Amino acid sequence: MKTARELGLMPESRLSVGPDNAITDVPGVAVGHRSLRSEGIFTGVTAVVPHPGDLFGVKPRAAVEVINGFGKSAGLMQVAELGTIETPILLTNTFGVAACTEALIRRAIAENPAIGRKTSTVNPLVCECNDGSINDIQALAVTPDDAMAALDAARPGPVEQGAVGAGSGMTAFGFKAGIGTASRILRIAERDFTLGTLVLANFGAAGDLVLPDGRRPDPRVPADPEHGSIIVIMATDLPLDSRQLQRVARRGGAGLARLGAFWGHGSGDVVLCFTTADPVAHEPKSPIVTQGRLSDDFIDIAFRAAAETTQEAVLNALCAASATPGRNGRIYPALADWLKESTNP
Amino acid sequence: MKTARELGLMPESRLSVGPDNAITDVPGVAVGHRSLRSEGIFTGVTAVVPHPGDLFGVKPRAAVEVINGFGKSAGLMQVAELGTIETPILLTNTFGVAACTEALIRRAIAENPAIGRKTSTVNPLVCECNDGSINDIQALAVTPDDAMAALDAARPGPVEQGAVGAGSGMTAFGFKAGIGTASRILRIAERDFTLGTLVLANFGAAGDLVLPDGRRPDPRVPADPEHGSIIVIMATDLPLDSRQLQRVARRGGAGLARLGAFWGHGSGDVVLCFTTADPVAHEPKSPIVTQGRLSDDFIDIAFRAAAETTQEAVLNALCAASATPGRNGRIYPALADWLKESTNP
Amino acid sequence: MKTARELGLMPESRLSVGPDNAITDVPGVAVGHRSLRSEGIFTGVTAVVPHPGDLFGVKPRAAVEVINGFGKSAGLMQVAELGTIETPILLTNTFGVAACTEALIRRAIAENPAIGRKTSTVNPLVCECNDGSINDIQALAVTPDDAMAALDAARPGPVEQGAVGAGSGMTAFGFKAGIGTASRILRIAERDFTLGTLVLANFGAAGDLVLPDGRRPDPRVPADPEHGSIIVIMATDLPLDSRQLQRVARRGGAGLARLGAFWGHGSGDVVLCFTTADPVAHEPKSPIVTQGRLSDDFIDIAFRAAAETTQEAVLNALCAASATPGRNGRIYPALADWLKESTNP
Amino acid sequence: MKTARELGLMPESRLSVGPDNAITDVPGVAVGHRSLRSEGIFTGVTAVVPHPGDLFGVKPRAAVEVINGFGKSAGLMQVAELGTIETPILLTNTFGVAACTEALIRRAIAENPAIGRKTSTVNPLVCECNDGSINDIQALAVTPDDAMAALDAARPGPVEQGAVGAGSGMTAFGFKAGIGTASRILRIAERDFTLGTLVLANFGAAGDLVLPDGRRPDPRVPADPEHGSIIVIMATDLPLDSRQLQRVARRGGAGLARLGAFWGHGSGDVVLCFTTADPVAHEPKSPIVTQGRLSDDFIDIAFRAAAETTQEAVLNALCAASATPGRNGRIYPALADWLKESTNP
Repeated sequence: MKTARELGLMPESRLSVGPDNAITDVPGVAVGHRSLRSEGIFTGVTAVVPHPGDLFGVKPRAAVEVINGFGKSAGLMQVAELGTIETPILLTNTFGVAACTEALIRRAIAENPAIGRKTSTVNPLVCECNDGSINDIQALAVTPDDAMAALDAARPGPVEQGAVGAGSGMTAFGFKAGIGTASRILRIAERDFTLGTLVLANFGAAGDLVLPDGRRPDPRVPADPEHGSIIVIMATDLPLDSRQLQRVARRGGAGLARLGAFWGHGSGDVVLCFTTADPVAHEPKSPIVTQGRLSDDFIDIAFRAAAETTQEAVLNALCAASATPGRNGRIYPALADWLKESTNP
Repeated sequence: MKTARELGLMPESRLSVGPDNAITDVPGVAVGHRSLRSEGIFTGVTAVVPHPGDLFGVKPRAAVEVINGFGKSAGLMQVAELGTIETPILLTNTFGVAACTEALIRRAIAENPAIGRKTSTVNPLVCECNDGSINDIQALAVTPDDAMAALDAARPGPVEQGAVGAGSGMTAFGFKAGIGTASRILRIAERDFTLGTLVLANFGAAGDLVLPDGRRPDPRVPADPEHGSIIVIMATDLPLDSRQLQRVARRGGAGLARLGAFWGHGSGDVVLCFTTADPVAHEPKSPIVTQGRLSDDFIDIAFRAAAETTQEAVLNALCAASATPGRNGRIYPALADWLKESTNP
Repeated sequence: MKTARELGLMPESRLSVGPDNAITDVPGVAVGHRSLRSEGIFTGVTAVVPHPGDLFGVKPRAAVEVINGFGKSAGLMQVAELGTIETPILLTNTFGVAACTEALIRRAIAENPAIGRKTSTVNPLVCECNDGSINDIQALAVTPDDAMAALDAARPGPVEQGAVGAGSGMTAFGFKAGIGTASRILRIAERDFTLGTLVLANFGAAGDLVLPDGRRPDPRVPADPEHGSIIVIMATDLPLDSRQLQRVARRGGAGLARLGAFWGHGSGDVVLCFTTADPVAHEPKSPIVTQGRLSDDFIDIAFRAAAETTQEAVLNALCAASATPGRNGRIYPALADWLKESTNP
Repeated sequence: MKTARELGLMPESRLSVGPDNAITDVPGVAVGHRSLRSEGIFTGVTAVVPHPGDLFGVKPRAAVEVINGFGKSAGLMQVAELGTIETPILLTNTFGVAACTEALIRRAIAENPAIGRKTSTVNPLVCECNDGSINDIQALAVTPDDAMAALDAARPGPVEQGAVGAGSGMTAFGFKAGIGTASRILRIAERDFTLGTLVLANFGAAGDLVLPDGRRPDPRVPADPEHGSIIVIMATDLPLDSRQLQRVARRGGAGLARLGAFWGHGSGDVVLCFTTADPVAHEPKSPIVTQGRLSDDFIDIAFRAAAETTQEAVLNALCAASATPGRNGRIYPALADWLKESTNP
C-alpha cells in the first residue's frame, strides 16, 4: 500500500515532513487500533494516546473546533471550557460512543481510585463517524473490551492506515477511506517542533474530491447526500494556549476544503488539537504556574501545517484503503485503483 | 412536603404561575423518574419527554446555553448546530451517561428501524450532575433498563420533586437538593403561552445561598469547592427560532445568580430550551416550510419567565428534599428544616 | 478586462451562474463604489444595499461568521445577537470605518427621525481591510461624504470589479486585487433562488495561490507575513433563519481555502450573509409572524454555492485588477498578465 | 454623595475591599472623564487606561463576554480572536463611537508612527450605551477632542462616580445612574492580587431592581421596555490567560442578575476583562515567551470578585447620581433619595 506522497499526490511544501509522516512523530504520542470483523460487522476503535503517563494526573492542553456539529462526539464541551483533556481519545462508529465512554471511565478509575470519590469525575473523550454504509451499525458491536484493546495496542512509530480500527467501515467522496495521518516539522527559533494529524475520514460527496493537481476522481457511485463525518485529531509539542490551539484546530477545515469538501450539512466535522507542552497538573504544586507560549507572530507556520497535514492525512486514508463492498451491495472503490487506471489508461 | 411558594419564599411576580407550577404545564410535556436505592447506591434517572409522539420523526426545535462547561452531557453539539432534539432528554449521574445513551439509541431504533440503515443515525440527549457526595458513583449503577424505566414512567401533570430520579443524590449550597420545577404563563397577543422549567440542582457552595428576601441560610457544613453542577431544562409552546431559544436559555443563568451562585469553576451549568411549536419533520413534505416566530420586541416576557422559573425550580428542589446522610458521614440538611428553625427559634 | 470564467479559471459546476454572475443577481440588491485618487491616496468605499426600501424599517435577516477575527469591522456583534441588519453594508479601509459609521448614522436618522429619540438607535455595518501597502492609510482620507457617494451610486445590474471603491488599494497572494463578485442559481422545489457573493479581497501570502487547475501563480514579490484581510458579503433570496445563514456564511471559508489560503493570523476574515426573504419589520404588525424556512435537508446546495461563489469572486477580483505600484515602490502585478505569460511563454 | 457601602447596601463578603474600592486599585490603571453639558446635551466620554505606558507596544491580555449583543461597541471581535487590547478603552454614548474611534487611531499613530505603514493597524476599543432618555443623542455631540480630553484626564486613585463622563445621561431601573466602580482583594498563595470593576450602567426596567436585602425600590416611573445597556470593564493583576479572562468576564452577568436584571432584549450587555500581568509585546524579543497562569483550582475567588464588584459598582453608580430631568419631561429620581424616604418615612 502506498501513501499519497509516494503516489505523487502532495505538492512540494515550504515545510518538511516528520520521520514517519504521522501523528506519532510528536514525541510521546501513540496510536492503537482494534478492528472488528464478522458477519455484517466491519467496524472498530482507534485510540490516540497523547502521552504515556497518567493523563488524568497530567492533562495536555487542548481545544476543539466544531466545523459542522452534526455529530455525537462525547467530551468536547469540557475541553472547550477547561482547555485540557484527561483521557486518551477514542475514535469509533456513532453507536460505539457509549461503550468507549464506559471503557475510559473504568480505566481512569483503575488508574486513579480517587475519581468520583475524593476528587472530581473524569471527562471521557470519544469521537465518531457513521460507518453504516458498510457496517451494520444497529448491531452496536463495539464493546468496552474493544475499546480497552485499542488502548492496549497503542504504540509510537508508524501508524497503520486505511480500513483499520475505527476506519474499518468509513468512506469518503464515494471511495473507501478510513484512518490517515501526516506530519510537518515546524522550525522556530532554531528549534524543531512537530505538528501531526490523524483523521477518521468518512465525508465528502462522490464527485467532489479534487486532487492537489486539479484532477477530480470519479468513483462512479451515486452522489448521495452526505451522512458522513470527519474527525481530525491534531497533536503538537509547540507551547500554545487554549485560544491558539483552537485557532490551529480551525485550520483543519482549510485542509478539508482544499480536497473539495464544503463541510456538508450531514457531516459531523470536528477538530481536536492538543499540545504535549506544559501540561496541566490535576493537583498543581503552586497556585500560579509558568507556561511557555508561542508568539502569535509565528503561528502561521502552525496554521499552514494544520491545513497541509489534514489534507494529506485524508489523501493517505484514501490511498491506503482497498475496494470494499457496502451493505447495499455497492462496491466502494479504492482511490489507488482509480489513480492506476487514470495514469495507465 | 411544601413548595417554595407555600413556604413564602417566592416574591410576587408580574407573571402568573401555571396550573401545576411545573414543566408539564407546557402541553404535551411529560416527566418520569426511576430511583435507585441499595447499599451505597442513591441515584437514578429522570426523563423529560417533549411530546408524546415519535420524537425522531417530529423534532422539537431547541437550543443549548453552556454557562460553565465543566460537565459531561451528551448530544449538545448537534442541538447547537441543527437547532433540534430528536430523543427524550435523560438526566442522570455523571457516570450514567453511557447507559442512558445506549437506552435512547435502542429505543429510537425500535421506533424507527431505518435509523443508521436507510436514514441518518440518532442523537441521544443525556445531561448529568455528579452525585458522588451521597451516591457511590464508581459503581456505575445506572443501567439501560433504568433509563427505559424512567422513560416508561413519564406522565403529564404534577411532578415529584426533591430526592427522586436523577435528583436522588444531589446537593446544593450545602443542603440536600435534587429535582425541582416551576412554570409561568406568558400572555401575548391575547393568547396564553407557557414556559416551564425543570432543574437537576447540584450546585452552589455552602453559605452562598441567598433567599429572595435576602436571608442567607447556613447549612453548617464546610464550604467545599464546588464539584456540583446544574442542569436546567426549559420547555415552552411559544414559537421561537434557534437564536431566540438560545437567548431564552441564557436567562436561566440569571435565575441561578439570583440564588447567590456565580457559576463556580467546578460546576457544569447547562441550560437546554425547547419549544413544542412548529417542530421539524425528519422527512419534510416540502423543501420550504412555514413557521411562526415571536417578534423579538415581545421576548422579554420569556426572558423574565426563564429567570424566575429557574430560580423557583431550584428553591422547590431544596424545599422538597429531606435531610440525607452523605458518603462521608456528614448529614446534608433540609432547607425546610432550616426555615422552620429560622422562623420558630 | 476579462473574468476568471472567461479566462478559463473556473471548472464546471453542478450549479448554473446568474445573469450577471454578481451579487446583484439577487433581486433588489444594489452595489455602489466611490474611488478616491490623489497624491498617495488610493482607496475608497463600496456599498452593498440589500434592498431599495427603508432598511431600518424592514430589516433583512442576516448572520456573521468570523473566520479569523484580526479586524476592525463595526456592527457585527448586534447582527450575531439579533439576526438582522438595519443599514446598508459599507466596505472601506481600516481607518475609514469611523467616517462610514457616521455616514450610516446620519443617513438612518434622516430617513427615520425617531431613531435615538422615540425608538432605538441604529447599528451601522462597516467592514474593512487594510490597504496600507498601496494607500497612505494614515491620511484617514475617507470622509462621511465619500460614504454617502458610494451609497448614492448603488445600482442593480453588473458590478465593476477589481481596483475600484473599497478595492482600490487591495492586494491578494502578492497580486493586485480588490472587489470581485459571482453568483449561482439554486433550483429547489421547481423554483429558482439565487445566492450572490461580493468580496473585498486583500488576503493570502505570495506563492500560496492555487488555481482550480492546480497551477500556483508566482507574483515574484516577497512573501511577507499577512496583514491583509478578506470581507465576504453573501446575499440570497432563499428563506433561511439566523442559524442557517451562519452555516451558509461559514462555507465562505471553504471557498477561500480552495484558493490556497489557510486564514492567516494577520488576516481579518469575515463573512456576512443576508437574505431578502421574509425581512423583519421594525414595528411588527403582530407579535407572532410567519416565516418561510428551507429544510436543512436541502441546504447543501446553498453551502456549495457559498463556497463556489467565494472562490470565483476572489478570482474575479484578481483577474479584473491591473498591475499597480505600492507605497514601498514595489509593483503588485496583475494575475491576468501572469496568465498571459504562462499560456503564451 | 455616599457609596452603596456607606448606605449599608452591600452585605459582608468573604473578600476584602481595595483601598479606593475602585478599578484603579489595580496598580497602573487610570480613569478619566470628559463631561459635556450644554442645551439638550448631557453626555460625555470616560477613559479606562490599563497601564501608563505604550499600550500598542505592550498589550494587556484581555477577553470579552457578550451577555446580550444588542449594542454597537467597537473593537471586540479582535479582542476575542487575539486576546489582547492595544488602546485605552473609551466609553461614550452610542453615536459617539465613531468620534472616539478616530481619536484612538490618531493618538496611536502619534505614539507609534509605524502603524499602518511599517506594522499592522490598530484596534480602537470603544464601548457605548444609549443615553437618549436624557441626552439629545441625534446631535452627535461627542468629538475626537472630547475623547482626547477624557484620555488626558486619566488618573490613578479615587474615581468620580454617577452622572459624570460617559455616565452623564445614563439611567438604570428607572433611576438616574452612570459610572460606578468597586474592587476586591484576592489573597492567593500569600500574595494579594486585585480585581476592580468599572461600569457604565444604563440598564434594567423600572421596578425590577432588587437590593441585597431583598427590598425592591420603586422609581415611580413607567416601566418602559429596555433600550439601555451596561458596559462592565474589569481589570486585574492576576495572571490569567484568554480562556480564563473570558470565564471571569462572564461572571459579571451574575452580578447584574443579583440586582434583578435578566439581561433584557434591548440591552447591550458587554463585559471586557483585562489583566496587567504578563502583557504581550508588539515586537516580542523571542518567539516563545513565558507567562504565569493561575491554576483553575483557584479561580473561584476571581469569579466571586467579578460578580460582587459588578453588583456593587452598579449600586455605587445608582447611589452617586442625583435626580435628573429627562428629555421627555420626566424626572429620573435618585436611589439615594428613595433610600432616605424608605428608612425615614
